[in-house]
Amino acid sequence: MIEMLPVRGLPEVVQGDDLGTLIAEATELRDGDVVVVAQKIVSKAEGAVVRLPPGTDVAATRRRLAGEQSLRTVVDAPWALVVQTRHGLVCANAGIDASNTPEGTLVLLPDDPDASARRLRSRLRERTGADVAVVVSDTFGRPWRTGQTDVAIGVAGLPPIRDERGGVDRQGRRLEVTEVAVADEVSAAADLVRRKADGVPVVVVRGLAFEIDDAASSSALIRDAALDLFPRGRGMLGPALVEAADRGPAWSQPVTRSDLDRAVAAVDTWSGLPRGLRLAHLEGPAPTTIRVLGAGLRRRGVVAGVLTAVLVDLGYRARVRTTWRHVQVEAGR
Amino acid sequence: MIEMLPVRGLPEVVQGDDLGTLIAEATELRDGDVVVVAQKIVSKAEGAVVRLPPGTDVAATRRRLAGEQSLRTVVDAPWALVVQTRHGLVCANAGIDASNTPEGTLVLLPDDPDASARRLRSRLRERTGADVAVVVSDTFGRPWRTGQTDVAIGVAGLPPIRDERGGVDRQGRRLEVTEVAVADEVSAAADLVRRKADGVPVVVVRGLAFEIDDAASSSALIRDAALDLFPRGRGMLGPALVEAADRGPAWSQPVTRSDLDRAVAAVDTWSGLPRGLRLAHLEGPAPTTIRVLGAGLRRRGVVAGVLTAVLVDLGYRARVRTTWRHVQVEAGR
Repeated sequence: MIEMLPVRGLPEVVQGDDLGTLIAEATELRDGDVVVVAQKIVSKAEGAVVRLPPGTDVAATRRRLAGEQSLRTVVDAPWALVVQTRHGLVCANAGIDASNTPEGTLVLLPDDPDASARRLRSRLRERTGADVAVVVSDTFGRPWRTGQTDVAIGVAGLPPIRDERGGVDRQGRRLEVTEVAVADEVSAAADLVRRKADGVPVVVVRGLAFEIDDAASSSALIRDAALDLFPRGRGMLGPALVEAADRGPAWSQPVTRSDLDRAVAAVDTWSGLPRGLRLAHLEGPAPTTIRVLGAGLRRRGVVAGVLTAVLVDLGYRARVRTTWRHVQVEAGR
Repeated sequence: MIEMLPVRGLPEVVQGDDLGTLIAEATELRDGDVVVVAQKIVSKAEGAVVRLPPGTDVAATRRRLAGEQSLRTVVDAPWALVVQTRHGLVCANAGIDASNTPEGTLVLLPDDPDASARRLRSRLRERTGADVAVVVSDTFGRPWRTGQTDVAIGVAGLPPIRDERGGVDRQGRRLEVTEVAVADEVSAAADLVRRKADGVPVVVVRGLAFEIDDAASSSALIRDAALDLFPRGRGMLGPALVEAADRGPAWSQPVTRSDLDRAVAAVDTWSGLPRGLRLAHLEGPAPTTIRVLGAGLRRRGVVAGVLTAVLVDLGYRARVRTTWRHVQVEAGR
């Protein structure tokens, strides 16, 4: 059995507060408990708060700060700016929050949520003697599904992923894809015992089976960019093209054969030209050159333009090169 | 306090089993419990199982079935086929599972998981007298984050979303975006008390505060396509272009001014032509026509091709039209 215990009676947290002591005084912790702490009180205690002059446009300021605090823009829609933060987290407005904050302030994410979790874990041990794990949680939206759930943005002591890939199922066959995002599930579970408005920013999850891991880091929850199938949302092809052009022609890897076949098949079908494309590889490993033959000059240009976009969407840099004889696309990584 | 209680001692479920009776006999239910049932045993009980002849290529068959059972392909990568199922769920392989299934079989999603949940809820009431909610859960991967979490694919009795948007925060300001995906959080929480290999497909979540809702449906968890910022993953622009071309020119809405400005700015920057694009609207509301002026014929074609791709990425249908005088892109919805 697992229990989720809301920690009640915490005061409104302000900069400089000793969260560990406040939590230790408000609850009885045991070895193996997971203490789930809402990001907002961690940020407030650490002073990750921006004070806005009176009359500031809060939404515009938040959008500007989110842009400044991000590695890249994932979606820029009128109603949502989704970025990847410097922590690696993909979330709306870089996690900058304007609810449950003092009037005229914005609350940023903690500078290093894993370090925050480690400090808190260590402090809780000092104060209570209990060897607990700590999860710093935040509320994220999701693609395809409505509603938010809480996820883990910082962990200490708790292995964030339970890797069951080496295991076997009950028929004795290898489990194919089973890496359970335990720290995210703990965060979601903790969110069930509170509402945003009710002031319960700390929940103890008791009874979870796990081995304490002093080296745990939430970075294990962030997908490697090369394996990420959703690097961009709707409407971000334009910026991706600009970025791909900016990075210049210093390619070291050619387009893979399967991606090349795929891109050419799509553009051939789209263009409706029965023999719209031919391929010619330059000598050497990169870039891959696709020469466009057939039809008139404009039509060749159109096909080259679309092929460039399709290759950028596949994750390559690509550019159109024209000579007096040829229209061709060069692409690579 | 909320408790998660694993239900132990259930037999291996086969087609025709009365799940409600099995669960009722294995646990003591109370009014207000949420019974979280793994999709796989619901599918098995309902016979949503495909038996494969000996020697069948399981991975290839699964991929083919997933394609047949989907509304659209979201990503088609060598290692993952992500589709939107006819239920509206976006998931790998249309949720078709090859682990913890009898040798030589594939387990499909239930035909109507909400109906499955409703039948189970009703049966549990008959057998135990308790008014419980039922959630059918399944394990999904996520963009940007590693590891899977369980989500709700069917609900009965439990409102899947807790809408706090009308509420106020502790400073008395309106909560801006707070729709909590309670049914997903319940599913994630239930997953914490089991491992895939240990045969605990049912978990009781006790102590959750909610009002029984007889009209609840998991469809509330599925984001409206028009608001979905992640309709496609990497590499799906080619198919989107083909689809946009296939749908023909029957546009009823023009490109919005902001999208038009955005697309033109991106392509102008990309093309590096100082005066690469000019706009001319045809009379009437749709389609929007963007005429490409400047540079040579090939270059105009390239710009028109890229602009077409950028508009498709923004969710429009688009096509290139050329006359002896002009290269232009027509786009709309």
